[in-house]
Amino acid sequence: MTGKLTVAGLGPGQIDWITPAVSKALASASDIFGYDSYLARLDAAPHQRLHASPNRVEIERANEALALASSGRDVAMVSGGDPGVFAMAAAIFEAIEHGPQEWRSIEIVIEPGITAMLAVAARIGAPLGHDFCAISLSDNLKPWDTIEKRLSLACEADFVIALYNPASKARPDGIFRAFEILNSKRVPETIVVFARAIGRPDESVTISTLAGADLSKVDMQTLVLIGSSATRLVKRGNGINPWVYTPRSMAPV
Amino acid sequence: MTGKLTVAGLGPGQIDWITPAVSKALASASDIFGYDSYLARLDAAPHQRLHASPNRVEIERANEALALASSGRDVAMVSGGDPGVFAMAAAIFEAIEHGPQEWRSIEIVIEPGITAMLAVAARIGAPLGHDFCAISLSDNLKPWDTIEKRLSLACEADFVIALYNPASKARPDGIFRAFEILNSKRVPETIVVFARAIGRPDESVTISTLAGADLSKVDMQTLVLIGSSATRLVKRGNGINPWVYTPRSMAPV
Repeated sequence: MTGKLTVAGLGPGQIDWITPAVSKALASASDIFGYDSYLARLDAAPHQRLHASPNRVEIERANEALALASSGRDVAMVSGGDPGVFAMAAAIFEAIEHGPQEWRSIEIVIEPGITAMLAVAARIGAPLGHDFCAISLSDNLKPWDTIEKRLSLACEADFVIALYNPASKARPDGIFRAFEILNSKRVPETIVVFARAIGRPDESVTISTLAGADLSKVDMQTLVLIGSSATRLVKRGNGINPWVYTPRSMAPV
Repeated sequence: MTGKLTVAGLGPGQIDWITPAVSKALASASDIFGYDSYLARLDAAPHQRLHASPNRVEIERANEALALASSGRDVAMVSGGDPGVFAMAAAIFEAIEHGPQEWRSIEIVIEPGITAMLAVAARIGAPLGHDFCAISLSDNLKPWDTIEKRLSLACEADFVIALYNPASKARPDGIFRAFEILNSKRVPETIVVFARAIGRPDESVTISTLAGADLSKVDMQTLVLIGSSATRLVKRGNGINPWVYTPRSMAPV
């Protein structure tokens, strides 16, 4: 008997950014997996089994959810942002690839969500209006050298750069090392945006330049955007953040 | 008197991927701008004024919408996918920057949506599970040399690459030139995905390798994904597309 596993993206936290497709999948699931903090946001029905987990080992949660789906249950797994971007979906397919053959018969549905960089971009203007890249600064699962190389080449390509997972208690210095590279490759006037907890009640945005960037407050709730050479500010009144955007047209790099 | 302009992302076409925030903004607007085909999908109320336009000159539409908002109306502009990713939001801020000073007092709200690469990724697995970039192949507004340079550096960085606007009637050869670069920089076994009209009734997905890629059917409705060296297939039964994913962990590039 083979069930279903839906990996559902909750977006960054704002309730009305959750797609109806995600809401429907969560309402019909028999079992819902996810971090405690995500499950606490849901309005689950009494018959739904919640599998809250403080467990940061994603592959273990993936295995548990797949085993349950394989037994015939209608399982949902919630993920912050979009499940496909530095989140749970890749762990699910990793688990399937290395798991029992019957897991390949499970109906897997990935339900997309608003990933952090889209939410941040929307709040401040249109910084992703031109070519861009997304890099995770977490070196739990990749060598730091790879991160450095990618940052360096992204600067050379003049991409707008979105940095996910910029810092954690376990690795507080990654963001400082990343900014050393950015400083060596881009001009000091380059626009930098620090956006924290976008879509949640305590959200905040700081717009700065590379030279003026204060890295001391960067944490796992922060998304960092580094502008390309074309990224610009549109000033508004005093005390109001300017808009940040990257024009659609550009000169050669 | 100063009104409001909401630039609302409709996602790729699937109705239940439209966020409640977007639906609400469209329901309350006095005026809605957008391409004919987008407006045709909406269920507008009789009192709402629709400004349908076959006009591909985005900056003109932006100017019209801003002028109307500035006169005090509650204007919405619909955009496919996410308005911030190769779509209308950047044109709006460009228009504001070069427009009359009073436009800077308009309340501008960008409502994010599911951009095509997230939808495609969700349909096929988790190809964006690791660092990636998004490049528009349209050279209407940027020199082709810039596109070539970015493609080349993106290969060197071993990013998963999402290609937006891969071809149009006006420039049918861009995708062929792009694949020449990809072929010279990545191994023939590299996984390539052609996803057309995802989220619409006629959606289709072709999973291929770089060596086996058929570029003849690529059009403006197609999003092309090129895997990194780590992107993998998980085989399922005969006649069923395999899943495509990029593991979270990796070896040095």
